[in-house]
Amino acid sequence: LAGAVASGIKYKDRLDLGLIYAPDGANVTGLFTRNKVKAAPVILSMQQITRGSARAVLVNSGNANACTGLPGIEAAKECMAAVSKELNISMEEILVASTGVIGAPLPIEKITAAMPKLVNNLSPDGFSALSKAIMTTDTFPKTSFLKGKVNNKPFSILGIAKGSGMIQPDLATMICFVLTDISIDSSLLHDILKTSVAHTLNSVTIDGDTSTNDCIIALASGKAQNPPINNSEKRNFKSAMEKILLDLSKQVARDGEGASHMFTVEVKGAMNNKDAKHAAFTIANSPLVKTAVNGSDPNWGRIMAALGRSGISFKPEDVDINVDDIPLVKNGIGMGKDYEAEVSMKMKKPEFKITINLKTGKKCFWRVFTCDFSKEYISINADYRS
Amino acid sequence: LAGAVASGIKYKDRLDLGLIYAPDGANVTGLFTRNKVKAAPVILSMQQITRGSARAVLVNSGNANACTGLPGIEAAKECMAAVSKELNISMEEILVASTGVIGAPLPIEKITAAMPKLVNNLSPDGFSALSKAIMTTDTFPKTSFLKGKVNNKPFSILGIAKGSGMIQPDLATMICFVLTDISIDSSLLHDILKTSVAHTLNSVTIDGDTSTNDCIIALASGKAQNPPINNSEKRNFKSAMEKILLDLSKQVARDGEGASHMFTVEVKGAMNNKDAKHAAFTIANSPLVKTAVNGSDPNWGRIMAALGRSGISFKPEDVDINVDDIPLVKNGIGMGKDYEAEVSMKMKKPEFKITINLKTGKKCFWRVFTCDFSKEYISINADYRS
Repeated sequence: LAGAVASGIKYKDRLDLGLIYAPDGANVTGLFTRNKVKAAPVILSMQQITRGSARAVLVNSGNANACTGLPGIEAAKECMAAVSKELNISMEEILVASTGVIGAPLPIEKITAAMPKLVNNLSPDGFSALSKAIMTTDTFPKTSFLKGKVNNKPFSILGIAKGSGMIQPDLATMICFVLTDISIDSSLLHDILKTSVAHTLNSVTIDGDTSTNDCIIALASGKAQNPPINNSEKRNFKSAMEKILLDLSKQVARDGEGASHMFTVEVKGAMNNKDAKHAAFTIANSPLVKTAVNGSDPNWGRIMAALGRSGISFKPEDVDINVDDIPLVKNGIGMGKDYEAEVSMKMKKPEFKITINLKTGKKCFWRVFTCDFSKEYISINADYRS
Repeated sequence: LAGAVASGIKYKDRLDLGLIYAPDGANVTGLFTRNKVKAAPVILSMQQITRGSARAVLVNSGNANACTGLPGIEAAKECMAAVSKELNISMEEILVASTGVIGAPLPIEKITAAMPKLVNNLSPDGFSALSKAIMTTDTFPKTSFLKGKVNNKPFSILGIAKGSGMIQPDLATMICFVLTDISIDSSLLHDILKTSVAHTLNSVTIDGDTSTNDCIIALASGKAQNPPINNSEKRNFKSAMEKILLDLSKQVARDGEGASHMFTVEVKGAMNNKDAKHAAFTIANSPLVKTAVNGSDPNWGRIMAALGRSGISFKPEDVDINVDDIPLVKNGIGMGKDYEAEVSMKMKKPEFKITINLKTGKKCFWRVFTCDFSKEYISINADYRS
């Protein structure tokens, strides 16, 4: 069950408080930001989640409850206590997540006052409202749904994420929930989540800024009534998890703050995967590459310059660069004006891919999902708190 | 002597070609980009400079002659040959530098055709024209001049730099010349240059993008007729060099592409200087910090988040943040609305300083010069080649 209400945390009449509820409990795992500055809800949920099961997740937007010290921890606990009272469940069974402005005190009264209505709103159809309640500068809610089969039992899996700014997840994205009715123990769920995140949410960057509030929480209710899956039966479920997270990753990149283009940077032929990843992130985070994409300008010199400063092993004279299927650079030299004109057309599309072949190693590659920097990005972030 | 002409490399009637000439030769040293992708003029000047002396430096804007392969090297050599012929000096005595668009072939004919006029324009008053000829997206020329004394002999030192975009120098800035009449051998000149660059030009970042064309060239003509200075007499000259480079560094940061505010990020109390430098650069390059500065928004949560993801050693609950003399964060917690209002006023000034005291180590600190991200930055870089 899920539900959401407008509690007035930052704006009036905007959904900003959500609740996920598994009446009979769920096995749970999570991944949290590796930012050294961790928000109060991250600190609390990291502790709570070690139990391996949970029944409720409270989430709010409009306030990150980060850099708020001990009073921030106490504030989150008061909100958990309100959930505990209203649902008549133990404090230990409740997780919390927050997103929004850093450093402002959490408005406890607004949240606790809204609790009866929030619990009253809980329903199997409440996930759409919840996906809206976690939005900040997002322009659309991000969900992904799949059905699958394990041991001939059908299961379903739902992912919900938010994105937009302060996005270069490091273990997770800003906030993401994965909800499934499959029966799986929390340690196997954790392994699958961790593996799936590496090439999906952890390969997204909007602005290179890792949030203080990143968290991904996966809940498995067991309502699919399959015999708990073991390591050898995990294939179908793992594949479903990867598809959900890949879909959400692309949605987060597409909805980057002010973005007009979502693009994939794929580096292949690197000496090792670490080099490929580092080069792909250096290119994806380069303000000069991001602004060139904004102007549909096939300014490949900026890609070469970003590669060159990344510090990875390669020879400039080996590098090939393609945009979708059009060659732009061959052996480190530009293909000329005609190809650039074709590439510029590709770059006018809402989505495209830049492939960089270093021709140094063999099978080593990494793919990063990102977006351009626009004037709207500046507006959104220069005026965010006002 | 120096001079400049409009040779029509990219725009008509805009100074774009400059020449520095020491008729009786000069001791020379230089520092060049550590970007793995090096422009043809960088590759050539790195070779030439090992001789320790030079007579002429040819520099152009509007074309970086980078990622142009062997034809780019040949093109630069043809331009050097034209200088050699016109000045009747050896090819070995000529250095070259270029700045502008990456990947386009150097228009050799335009440059060689302009050579007689360029040489004819050489004069002791030509440095102002030269400082304009190396501008790309710069909005003002950057020069700095000082007079000093060594062993009771007067000397002078002139610095000329360009900046604006693709600026996070790694050994130098995009292009910088230091010209002095002091008598000093090139190896001592090199030591002084290298030490002085670390806390000046190498501590500037506009956008985190290290250029393919960075170079700093120092020429010492010996015309001051002091006995060549030795290591124990270098103090006055070293201090003059540092002042010149500091002044140019601030000018480069102030004139960052689209910048409306120049700000200094100073991290102190770090465990070591490396940590302090890494943290200062992480904050200075954060798009969220740069856009908050653009909006004069004292959004200190973004500074804390950048610190947290930088990976350095510190405790969030120890951090103090000041903007100029106003405290914004004390022991990891915000000072509140009144202080934020005062800080916002400070942030409306064209220049201010953010000081982060980690209170972890003792005397370890680093200072980085940078600027905000504005809508103009996006305009300049989305439309740069069109």
